[in-house]
Amino acid sequence: MLRISQRGVDMPASPIRKLVPYAEAAKRRGMTVYHLNIGQPDIETPPAIMQAVRDVQMPVLEYSHSAGNESYRRKLVQYYQRIGIQVTHEQIMVTTGGSEAILFAFFSCLNPGDEVIVPEPFYANYNGFACTAGVKVVPIPSSIDTGFALPPVPEFERVISDRTRAILICNPNNPTGYLYSRQEVEALGVICRKYQLYLFSDEAYREFRYADTEYISALQLEGLDENVVLLDTISKRYSACGARIGALVTRNAAIYSTALKFAQARLSPPGLAQIMGEAAVDLPEDYFDGTKEEYERRRDLLVRRLNAMEGVFCPNPGGAFYAMARLPIDDCDRFCQWLLESFSYKNQTLMLAPATGFYATPGLGINEVRLAYVLNTDAINAAMDCLEQALKEYPGKY
Amino acid sequence: MLRISQRGVDMPASPIRKLVPYAEAAKRRGMTVYHLNIGQPDIETPPAIMQAVRDVQMPVLEYSHSAGNESYRRKLVQYYQRIGIQVTHEQIMVTTGGSEAILFAFFSCLNPGDEVIVPEPFYANYNGFACTAGVKVVPIPSSIDTGFALPPVPEFERVISDRTRAILICNPNNPTGYLYSRQEVEALGVICRKYQLYLFSDEAYREFRYADTEYISALQLEGLDENVVLLDTISKRYSACGARIGALVTRNAAIYSTALKFAQARLSPPGLAQIMGEAAVDLPEDYFDGTKEEYERRRDLLVRRLNAMEGVFCPNPGGAFYAMARLPIDDCDRFCQWLLESFSYKNQTLMLAPATGFYATPGLGINEVRLAYVLNTDAINAAMDCLEQALKEYPGKY
Repeated sequence: MLRISQRGVDMPASPIRKLVPYAEAAKRRGMTVYHLNIGQPDIETPPAIMQAVRDVQMPVLEYSHSAGNESYRRKLVQYYQRIGIQVTHEQIMVTTGGSEAILFAFFSCLNPGDEVIVPEPFYANYNGFACTAGVKVVPIPSSIDTGFALPPVPEFERVISDRTRAILICNPNNPTGYLYSRQEVEALGVICRKYQLYLFSDEAYREFRYADTEYISALQLEGLDENVVLLDTISKRYSACGARIGALVTRNAAIYSTALKFAQARLSPPGLAQIMGEAAVDLPEDYFDGTKEEYERRRDLLVRRLNAMEGVFCPNPGGAFYAMARLPIDDCDRFCQWLLESFSYKNQTLMLAPATGFYATPGLGINEVRLAYVLNTDAINAAMDCLEQALKEYPGKY
Repeated sequence: MLRISQRGVDMPASPIRKLVPYAEAAKRRGMTVYHLNIGQPDIETPPAIMQAVRDVQMPVLEYSHSAGNESYRRKLVQYYQRIGIQVTHEQIMVTTGGSEAILFAFFSCLNPGDEVIVPEPFYANYNGFACTAGVKVVPIPSSIDTGFALPPVPEFERVISDRTRAILICNPNNPTGYLYSRQEVEALGVICRKYQLYLFSDEAYREFRYADTEYISALQLEGLDENVVLLDTISKRYSACGARIGALVTRNAAIYSTALKFAQARLSPPGLAQIMGEAAVDLPEDYFDGTKEEYERRRDLLVRRLNAMEGVFCPNPGGAFYAMARLPIDDCDRFCQWLLESFSYKNQTLMLAPATGFYATPGLGINEVRLAYVLNTDAINAAMDCLEQALKEYPGKY
């Protein structure tokens, strides 16, 4: 009999996309929908890196090296050096987005049935990559009451089993916007050394930090060269999500040569977009200043507006472009659907990401939502006006 | 302890790339190396599709739809219609190269331990994708003596077990250049219907056919809508290997919606390259004529030169841009390395792909090589001069 694979059945659908039909229906009714639900930046892709692609003179668009063009990898060495990470171009593998870097790390380091510990809430697609690789995600809860700080070390030790092989973090964090401190990252390093675990560090939002917290990349930890795999991407950094260019960076030569076998099977990462990535390293040093200021302005507005609403609590995120808020509601999935299906304020509504999609433990996050501040301040204000009104009208109050 | 995954250990290294260091050393010695070893076409990427990328006006390079831009998928409907395949844009999923289409098909249809039957010799990376998905490749040999025709149906039935879930073919074939006839593809259809197997059909080389054989795509088989998954790519068709744009096409809605979950986890296929793919569908109808004539001229030359050498047999391939030849040698891996390491003719040598990398059954293909005719006729002549001389000098004659 023709059957879908069990892995295919188990594969989670995107928790955000299930609301898309409701948003589309609202738009068909002529409503304005403010999208605070997605991590797609609205910031312009730097014209200089788009121009780099236009300037390409290449009679044949050939396969690149499976690890990415050497010229790009050598440029990335400079990029990492500038931010205090010392690596060689043979420790950098260019991947098809950060997504493929995560998959390659899982495939290379974890066997089916192995466990990876992830502080929750976490980026929902980690579930999909774990399912693809047959790996089990073991969540340990962080709490909105502490602003989603790293759970204390004993919480990690409590769930470490003989199948535990890795800890996966996202820093700055999606979905919480939490920025792990040096002390927190070092604490993870101590656990990983003690229990001989891999430390997978997703640092897609590295450039977007607004707190005084001292930041440290996992690759800056001492004595963990064999443990750390950095998962990176240009998607958010340069507002180039559609490029699909990421990187896996590790000083562990065995991981690198293993990941390279997976990379060789799929031949090469996208060619034109590598040229964008290479040009991006040459952007002026102050390129991020404007973007960061803009995100910070939006964050300040969003957090202030949220906390001014009755019964709403939103810890101040230190990085990325996300905030998590606790709302006085019974069920975030119901609420987010209701916003699109049944609510209207001046013919407008907003789309939020229900937080349940970011938790693995059932019941957690039931009254939380994630808000991405990828809209300008006018739109954020308008969306907050809608939310304020919606919380007054929503029938399923907590 | 920090260990590489078993899957990572099992993952095969590219059988061709292991010779690369020898080719590089030869070039450092000042030698000319004719590369007949790789499937990277030398044909110019159509300037019109490169221009389409230059003309892009896109302030933000956003994620595309996870299944690919709808505009591109609608264009592909026209492309498939022109070649006699009726599908809708909701049966087409744009993938990151044909590689990802194969992976999505494996992930969606096969469980770890399931078996997929593949006529050998076959594209070596199928092994890598099978390893990634935990799937077992069950080879059934085709023979150079029949020009690599499809093995007879009883050969398939002999290896069908209760773990068999699919048959995978490549048509026209890489590495053999064999073009399956309508009768052969229909025979596969009968087996797949009888035993309820998926038929994965890799048709990356569809446009390059030089024989009178009546060609049929697996998607043109009657009554197999639930069984067939077409695996496609623009890499070879438009000499755009670096674009990394492929497609998974199926009328089986359950496979499609399952593959879409894997596609959503990795967010989207490359953005700029989808624009190339879309523009390619609008190339003039006669675009392929010139390319085909060029490949045919090369094939004729290559096959003629090979068969004129003593002890060499090369069946005339009906498609793609590969030929397989039996040489009077003891061991193709040794011979190919010797060509690069120890042989020189007028300061030139050639690089071939040892056929052993395309066979799963140990011992098969030991005296065969694959030759890709991705060089102009002058270079092919020069390479054949080298080969002729090499066969006289090689110490490990059969």
